[in-house]
Amino acid sequence: MSKEDIGITVSKEDDFSEWYTQVVLKAKLADYAPVKGLIVLRPDGYSVWESLRNTFDQKFFKNGIRNGFLPVLIPESLLGKEKKHFAGFNPEVFWVTHSGENEIGDRLALRPTSETLAYTLYSKWIQSWRDLPLKINFWNTALRAEIKATKPFLRTSEFLWQEGHTVHATKEEAEEEVMKILEIYKNTVEDELAIPVVIGKKSEKEKFVGAVYTTTMESIMPDGKALQMGTSHFLGQNFSIPFEVKFADKDNVEHFAWQTSWGVSWRLIGAMIMIHGDNKGLVLPPKVAPIQVVIVPIYNSEETKKKVIPKAIEIQEELASENIRVHFDDRDELTPGYKFNDWELKGVPIRIEIGPKDIEKQSALIAKRYNKEKTSIQFDKIKNIVSILDEIQKQMLESAKIQSGKNTKKVDSYAEFKSKISEGGFFNAYWCGNQECEEKIKEETSADIRVIPFDSEDTSGKCMYCQKQSMCKPVFARGY
Amino acid sequence: MSKEDIGITVSKEDDFSEWYTQVVLKAKLADYAPVKGLIVLRPDGYSVWESLRNTFDQKFFKNGIRNGFLPVLIPESLLGKEKKHFAGFNPEVFWVTHSGENEIGDRLALRPTSETLAYTLYSKWIQSWRDLPLKINFWNTALRAEIKATKPFLRTSEFLWQEGHTVHATKEEAEEEVMKILEIYKNTVEDELAIPVVIGKKSEKEKFVGAVYTTTMESIMPDGKALQMGTSHFLGQNFSIPFEVKFADKDNVEHFAWQTSWGVSWRLIGAMIMIHGDNKGLVLPPKVAPIQVVIVPIYNSEETKKKVIPKAIEIQEELASENIRVHFDDRDELTPGYKFNDWELKGVPIRIEIGPKDIEKQSALIAKRYNKEKTSIQFDKIKNIVSILDEIQKQMLESAKIQSGKNTKKVDSYAEFKSKISEGGFFNAYWCGNQECEEKIKEETSADIRVIPFDSEDTSGKCMYCQKQSMCKPVFARGY
Repeated sequence: MSKEDIGITVSKEDDFSEWYTQVVLKAKLADYAPVKGLIVLRPDGYSVWESLRNTFDQKFFKNGIRNGFLPVLIPESLLGKEKKHFAGFNPEVFWVTHSGENEIGDRLALRPTSETLAYTLYSKWIQSWRDLPLKINFWNTALRAEIKATKPFLRTSEFLWQEGHTVHATKEEAEEEVMKILEIYKNTVEDELAIPVVIGKKSEKEKFVGAVYTTTMESIMPDGKALQMGTSHFLGQNFSIPFEVKFADKDNVEHFAWQTSWGVSWRLIGAMIMIHGDNKGLVLPPKVAPIQVVIVPIYNSEETKKKVIPKAIEIQEELASENIRVHFDDRDELTPGYKFNDWELKGVPIRIEIGPKDIEKQSALIAKRYNKEKTSIQFDKIKNIVSILDEIQKQMLESAKIQSGKNTKKVDSYAEFKSKISEGGFFNAYWCGNQECEEKIKEETSADIRVIPFDSEDTSGKCMYCQKQSMCKPVFARGY
Repeated sequence: MSKEDIGITVSKEDDFSEWYTQVVLKAKLADYAPVKGLIVLRPDGYSVWESLRNTFDQKFFKNGIRNGFLPVLIPESLLGKEKKHFAGFNPEVFWVTHSGENEIGDRLALRPTSETLAYTLYSKWIQSWRDLPLKINFWNTALRAEIKATKPFLRTSEFLWQEGHTVHATKEEAEEEVMKILEIYKNTVEDELAIPVVIGKKSEKEKFVGAVYTTTMESIMPDGKALQMGTSHFLGQNFSIPFEVKFADKDNVEHFAWQTSWGVSWRLIGAMIMIHGDNKGLVLPPKVAPIQVVIVPIYNSEETKKKVIPKAIEIQEELASENIRVHFDDRDELTPGYKFNDWELKGVPIRIEIGPKDIEKQSALIAKRYNKEKTSIQFDKIKNIVSILDEIQKQMLESAKIQSGKNTKKVDSYAEFKSKISEGGFFNAYWCGNQECEEKIKEETSADIRVIPFDSEDTSGKCMYCQKQSMCKPVFARGY
């Protein structure tokens, strides 16, 4: 295989879509499965997901949420119990009709989402106020048949996600939960993946069909398209009434409960690839990198090798003792140059190079992946790499914020909006709150309301479409 | 609800099967899903699985194994590629025939196991000796339609498991891997779940159809039935040939690779319930208990409450600082007696009782769940609970070994075997190695060869069935 075949052959600027697919495949994050629409995760991809899962689990647990397990099969009769909800998923459902040679009477759906299944159980489990709040999260997959071309992490017929489902005695408590989760989502995505997000509400048109309202976090990708990064829904009593999720209060009076549901998926990994990756491949934020530091020894003779290897091992051990995920690349048959490209493609945050001259100077060379900066570090300061990794993490968020800021625009008129929409980006514009205008804008520009930021109520302007008094200033964009 | 409804209403000795189901449901480990054959895990059940997963993950990782993700859908054409293997699963496969309104051409199977899918990918990923060994584990579920009555954790149509799939350059290395995994399985089950196991090989008749040979760990349950606790298969080149899992060696000569696969499922949780549970409910080994210590305050007036609560909180904080998973049961409306029953049902290893008299004596009462022993502990020695939990863990294994020893019997003749088999238990008996004898024994007694222990080659006796010279001394039993 030539060097070209191994590395990325198109530039992020010229062919974003092809660049993305090459990074996913060549950095060995994922691969296509034999069924159209499905992908598999290779260890380097799955470990980013595991890292996110661990962080979310810790935060969920502190918030009184615990994990459970739900089966993948839901009977058709149950899925149809909440009609509006069902209608939304119906065209995408995979149906199981046979087990072995036997036909199944009530067809079984592969879970597109688990509200109906979870709440059937919750109605059994919840009797009294003592059973509330009930807060359970499920790490599983959802299955929704995709007809468009597969895009790893972004458009697949089965995807990894978590879905949380909570039940509360009061409306206020449920609404607080919706916001607590959105906050956990936001700070995890910013702190772990170094991706800035805008949080707010979805419009009525764009909300989850089963919800009273949907809160969302959205990010703008380098190609100018918006990506929904996670949603947290206030379900009100939309499910508790049909599913009879009821509780007796302290005076033994029965009430329907108040509910929330919320989820993030492996789309987050897709966003991370798009936001941080460059023309050499993947760039991983240190916190989620399976390997944070790779050590590449440099030698050209048995004699220099004998000097370099023991020092490399010593550094490896020192970094490992600081809980850094460090790898020593001791492959003897490959050149340092090949190794540099290989680890850059895979996005390892720091590369340490050690050669005979470095040993003379008692220092090593450090190459930072995200900004390609090279510095040297004294051997006796090697533990500073802990704080260098922290700095990289922060700088990656700062640089993503700048990128995202450049992609966020204000427009004063619909004419301006139409002329700029094909450049891509987030557009802040006034809106009257009327769904008709929203639909017209979508029809004419393919852009929709991604998010109505929480602080964007604003009646001082005029709807960019109809010129009536504005209600708020949402973020419009074309989306994934 | 009366106290009887909440607690276990049958005894383990009198009606083991009903006792088991009540423990699962009433300790809130699991519940039935709306589809026959499927269960859901509630947080207390799932957290035992999470704890096992974390332990296995650490051990797998040390052994160079990493996790990945595979989709649940496998095309029929692919599943049928290894014929013998497919024939074994065919009657149990769930088939997806439609997505939305559209019929799917090549029907999709819900994964009964992932050999065919994984190895299709492995054949792409592996080119040269540098890509080996490839060792990936998948935490997912398997789906195999069950026709018999559902038994939570033991017989369900979807079950949580892990399936590991490794590829090696040499036969020797693959066979070593099979044994390393079996060893990880054994020490995890013994150390975490306090369950002794017998390890060895399956007979030709009982092996995984796709394997050259299957190694297994088996345990004997208190009702005298054997439970397969996990298997590790040497696949030889049975899959690498049809799936073309090949590699070029250093001289660029192509070879078919050598493979292993292995798995444990949530059956392990079923075994834990059966082995340790008693007539008051679940008994959890400390290492996998979501709550290791519960503190129950005892007071009969506002005045005594004011003394007791702060001390209880102080102890809670002290134990939490030692990384003990501790819960303070401050429910004001329930009696201590009710709480004792509740936490006993749920199997919490240690209960601490604190009342006003305890505070005078500067000590608390400790009740150990597994042997019902009560002792007192001085407040200033409270951190000793760390080592008390360790002791409980060890003693539970010791006591399970004694139980298992009593259920392990030697028989000298087939007549004796037939007369004793209905008592249940593991039976060590000579066997000639001939499958005909094995089948006759199965036919006449419903017992099969559970495991041929590694140290059981023995030609000094006579086959209990045909009286010919023995080859080994396997363990016979009726199984789950």
